[in-house]
Amino acid sequence: MLSNSRTVRIEWGDCDPAAIIFYPRYFEIFDAATTALFERALGLTKFEMFKALPFGGFPLVRTQANFLKPTRFGDDVVVDTTIKFGRSSFEVEHRLSLNGELCAECTETRIWVVRDPATGGIKSQAVPEEVLAKFNR
Amino acid sequence: MLSNSRTVRIEWGDCDPAAIIFYPRYFEIFDAATTALFERALGLTKFEMFKALPFGGFPLVRTQANFLKPTRFGDDVVVDTTIKFGRSSFEVEHRLSLNGELCAECTETRIWVVRDPATGGIKSQAVPEEVLAKFNR
Amino acid sequence: MLSNSRTVRIEWGDCDPAAIIFYPRYFEIFDAATTALFERALGLTKFEMFKALPFGGFPLVRTQANFLKPTRFGDDVVVDTTIKFGRSSFEVEHRLSLNGELCAECTETRIWVVRDPATGGIKSQAVPEEVLAKFNR
Amino acid sequence: MLSNSRTVRIEWGDCDPAAIIFYPRYFEIFDAATTALFERALGLTKFEMFKALPFGGFPLVRTQANFLKPTRFGDDVVVDTTIKFGRSSFEVEHRLSLNGELCAECTETRIWVVRDPATGGIKSQAVPEEVLAKFNR
Repeated sequence: MLSNSRTVRIEWGDCDPAAIIFYPRYFEIFDAATTALFERALGLTKFEMFKALPFGGFPLVRTQANFLKPTRFGDDVVVDTTIKFGRSSFEVEHRLSLNGELCAECTETRIWVVRDPATGGIKSQAVPEEVLAKFNR
Repeated sequence: MLSNSRTVRIEWGDCDPAAIIFYPRYFEIFDAATTALFERALGLTKFEMFKALPFGGFPLVRTQANFLKPTRFGDDVVVDTTIKFGRSSFEVEHRLSLNGELCAECTETRIWVVRDPATGGIKSQAVPEEVLAKFNR
Repeated sequence: MLSNSRTVRIEWGDCDPAAIIFYPRYFEIFDAATTALFERALGLTKFEMFKALPFGGFPLVRTQANFLKPTRFGDDVVVDTTIKFGRSSFEVEHRLSLNGELCAECTETRIWVVRDPATGGIKSQAVPEEVLAKFNR
Repeated sequence: MLSNSRTVRIEWGDCDPAAIIFYPRYFEIFDAATTALFERALGLTKFEMFKALPFGGFPLVRTQANFLKPTRFGDDVVVDTTIKFGRSSFEVEHRLSLNGELCAECTETRIWVVRDPATGGIKSQAVPEEVLAKFNR
C-alpha cells in the first residue's frame, strides 16, 4: 500500500479572478493527500498518529510542482499519490488529473520527526519499522 | 429538496496552533455547502449554473455564526444545510455536528444576482422560477 | 487604547471568480485585526502573550457580519477595530472601509481562556487586570 | 528595478497545530510578493495592469521551494524577490528570511498571457516592451 487515489472537488473559493484554481490551494490538496495516504496505510488519522506513534509530524523540506493545465470550480479531480521511504525522510509524489488528463504534478520531500525532550522542539528520526511494515504489507 | 447533508473532513491545514479549526475555514466549508445544496437541487455545478441560468452569483450580504464546540483535524463532521427563499434573497442555515453533537451553526443571507449589461456589473433579480421549481420538487 | 486602525491590501488570491474578495478571507483579516489590537495595547505579539500572560487563546464563540460593498484585489482597505471587555468575554467590532466608504462590518464575541491543568484542556477565566489596565491606559 | 523587498507578518491563522506556518501559506506570500514586484516596477496594481496593458495574467507553470527553518505567528519575515525575463516567460526568485536567516526560498516560472479573442481563452505572448523598459529603468 504505497499509493492512494482520491477524488477532490475544486471549489469556488479555491479559484481566483482568472476563474481557475489559485495554485497555493493545490498545495493544500497535496498536503491533505499525503495525510490521506498515511491514514489509509496505518488506519490512523494524523490526530491518532500523534497519540499512537513516536510521531511529531512530517514537515516538508522541499517541494517541486508543475502546473500543466488549469482546473476550475466544479471539477472533480483525481489525486494519485505514491511514496518512497528513505531512512528518516521520504518522497511523496502527487499526480492530479481531470478526466484522465494530467493537470498538475508535485513532489514533496518530508522528514519524519519526533519531539525532542532535550530541547522541547523536534528532531528527525528514522521512520518507525511499524510504519514501514504497514506500508509494505 | 430544500436541504442537504454532507460529511466534511477537517484537515490539518484547517487548524491553528490551538490544534482546533481556525474559524474562517468554517466559512469556506459553509460556502461549499451552499454550493452543494444548489448542485443537488439543480443537478448543476456552480460552473454550469453560470452557463445554464440567468445567474451571476449569490453573494453573501450577511452572516451570523455560533461556535459551540471546537473540531479538530481528523474529525469527519456532518454539515446539514437548509434554505428558505425570499424573492431575490434567500437564507441558508448550516448546522455542523460531530458524532451527533452540534459544534457550529451559521445563517447566511444571500442575494441572487445577474449580470447587468447596462453597467457591466451585477444586479439583484428574483430567483428564477425554474430554480424554485427544482427546489420544491 | 481601546481601538486600532490598520491598512490591509486585498490580494489577488483573496478573490474568487467574481473578482471580488471571497468572504471567508474577511474573517482572516478580522482575526488578524483582533490580534493586532492586542499587540498594540500590550506591546506583545500573540506568540509573546502565550509566554508572558495567563493566556491560552481567545476563541471565538459568536460572530456576525454584514457585507455592504465588495472589495477587490489591489484595494487598500482600512480596518478600524474597537473592543469592549466583559468579565471573561469581550466583544470586538471591525469596520472595514475603502476610500472612506464602509464595505463590511463584523462583531466578534470571544472568551479569554487559560490552560486547565486538571483536564489538559482550556477553561475561560476573567481577563487579567494587567491586560485591562494596558487597554485602559 | 528587478528586485523588491517587503516585510510580511506571519499570522496565527497561517500556522498549523505544529505552531509553525502551514507551507501552502508561503505560496500565498510568494504570489503576493510577485504581484508587489510588478506593482513597484510598473506603478500599477495587478487590477490596474488588466486595464492598462495587454495582460491576461501571469500563471505559474512551475515552482520549486526549499523550507530551511520554520517561521511562526508573530514573526515579521522579509521577502526578497528578484526577476529574470525570458521572452514570454519569466523566473521569479523569493528568499524569505527572519532576522537575517534564510527560512525559505522559492523559484517560480510564470508566463505572460493575454486574452485570445479567437478562443475566448488565453495565450502566451512576449512580455510587452513597455513592461521590460520599466523593469530595466
